[in-house]
Amino acid sequence: MGIKVADKIRLGIVGYGNIGQGAEIAINATDDMRLEAVFSRRGKDRISLMTEGVPVFSPDHAPKFKGSIDVMLMCGGSATDLPVQTPRFAPLFNLVDSFDTHANMHQHFCKTHQAALTGGKTAIIGAGWDPGLFSLLRLFVDSVLPGSRSDTFWGPGLSQGHSDALRRIPGVKAAVQYTIPIPAALSAAREGVFGGMSAQQKHLRQCYIVAEDRADRDLISQTVRTMPDYFAGYKTEIHFVSPKDLEQNHAGKAHGGKVIGLGSTGLEAGNRQSLELALDLEHNAQFTASVMVAYARAAHKMNSLGLMGAHTVFDVPLSHLSPQSRDALHKKFL
Amino acid sequence: MGIKVADKIRLGIVGYGNIGQGAEIAINATDDMRLEAVFSRRGKDRISLMTEGVPVFSPDHAPKFKGSIDVMLMCGGSATDLPVQTPRFAPLFNLVDSFDTHANMHQHFCKTHQAALTGGKTAIIGAGWDPGLFSLLRLFVDSVLPGSRSDTFWGPGLSQGHSDALRRIPGVKAAVQYTIPIPAALSAAREGVFGGMSAQQKHLRQCYIVAEDRADRDLISQTVRTMPDYFAGYKTEIHFVSPKDLEQNHAGKAHGGKVIGLGSTGLEAGNRQSLELALDLEHNAQFTASVMVAYARAAHKMNSLGLMGAHTVFDVPLSHLSPQSRDALHKKFL
Repeated sequence: MGIKVADKIRLGIVGYGNIGQGAEIAINATDDMRLEAVFSRRGKDRISLMTEGVPVFSPDHAPKFKGSIDVMLMCGGSATDLPVQTPRFAPLFNLVDSFDTHANMHQHFCKTHQAALTGGKTAIIGAGWDPGLFSLLRLFVDSVLPGSRSDTFWGPGLSQGHSDALRRIPGVKAAVQYTIPIPAALSAAREGVFGGMSAQQKHLRQCYIVAEDRADRDLISQTVRTMPDYFAGYKTEIHFVSPKDLEQNHAGKAHGGKVIGLGSTGLEAGNRQSLELALDLEHNAQFTASVMVAYARAAHKMNSLGLMGAHTVFDVPLSHLSPQSRDALHKKFL
Repeated sequence: MGIKVADKIRLGIVGYGNIGQGAEIAINATDDMRLEAVFSRRGKDRISLMTEGVPVFSPDHAPKFKGSIDVMLMCGGSATDLPVQTPRFAPLFNLVDSFDTHANMHQHFCKTHQAALTGGKTAIIGAGWDPGLFSLLRLFVDSVLPGSRSDTFWGPGLSQGHSDALRRIPGVKAAVQYTIPIPAALSAAREGVFGGMSAQQKHLRQCYIVAEDRADRDLISQTVRTMPDYFAGYKTEIHFVSPKDLEQNHAGKAHGGKVIGLGSTGLEAGNRQSLELALDLEHNAQFTASVMVAYARAAHKMNSLGLMGAHTVFDVPLSHLSPQSRDALHKKFL
């Protein structure tokens, strides 16, 4: 059953934060993939990998690996890294990212699609749990039950993307953001009392920020509250805390969420049909990274099948996520 | 936004029981498909459709519709109908079935695959909620979290497939079967106390049977308890009841179930990652039929893309289930 090292899918990691580290662990948990190199702005002297013998380079060095890395895992943040890095890498490498700014997803897709096509490469964007697994359930519900609706709730948990967005604000030294479902909204969704709730109506955003000494806290607060897509329109709590407080009390890596789908079938739509998918994750970034690694398998396979350009989880048959044979999938999971 | 009648996907229904009737309703709930004809052994004089102007024929008449039906929905039972009908229809029509005998799935796939290939047609088998949606989650969990496991629970609810199997036993006039999760097993799965539970250990099967007047009840009971795949090895309760009792007290159409997935990530696998998908259906057959109708859209599309032969839900990108454009899917569901 062993796969020769030479035949394993060779992966690279761009960005060695929480998701990049999770990706390294996830790759090592597979039998059919191996980590070829890590690319980080921090450079090799400031990073120590868990995997022996794997080199670290600057991202600028990555093009030299064209042809010797099968799939690149883009592990930067959605706020400023991925919108630039993914289209830049897409002509050179098959790649997977977990870009998660829902409002800009289609734009990110289009830019990446053009870039990937110029190089004959395959890119899968938005591969995680939301976007990702949750997107799949929302699409399934809508396709199967016309006129139905799905409500998505995030949290309670620390959102990497939103924490990242906070940390990029000038004057912010460190920060974390908790997303918390608003209980009344959760009940309304489960009871089918829908008024077309927006994400803003369903979630509270709790920010814990360490400001630089001479930073203007009012300006930081205003920047947070007006940040489009991330905070604007949300009920947002902002707490300025000390570095020590942040380190001791806000290192939580757990997250989760729910998709609640409700529809009906039958004459006069008399029969209620409901679905609920709940995720409870002790380590958000590691789970997201694990999803990315499974989709790396798919990107590699789809490229070998001639399916170039950008794709989302909607375009990927789930059989491509697995290293197992068709027979095995039928017997074990169907 | 309207689709011209002439451009709609033309569907046929083979078998007009609970699922066939659900399929008729589900087709009429879409904007892009229409029902062309129904094929039933009962014949046109014993069936009245809900849809005006749609003809009813014997299944033997179906080959005459080659070329004028785009996708056939195979709505017979898994015990004896589909193993024969699906491979027989597969060379003539693109088709979808919800064959649900897990143990024979791969064999059914192989027979259908060969048959579909001879006619250049596309068949999607096992499209429902289990197999179907639940299969997708099981495969996702296994692919993303190596070494994880998923436990599936069915019910509480009336199982069409198992009721159908009971009704085909000689001497049985009418029957229903309830599948009920065993509470201790459900707790064990949620708490992650796994001993490799089998479906048999997780479920109670409750049968309510109306026997023919001179039927040998002991022989019927023995046939039930030893029926492979369906009842053998399960804790099975058998109750013989009057036709009136069955009609009044056992017309329940509700069903549901859960997939509980548990895995871990991280160094020393220290972080627990859990997923739970729960379905709560007021009308099992209508939901299954609705899934089949969405997959009919996929079968039509995949055939036009040259993807012949048999496929399962694992091979179908979810984007093919939806009538909406790629842009719309990105914006609404990603």
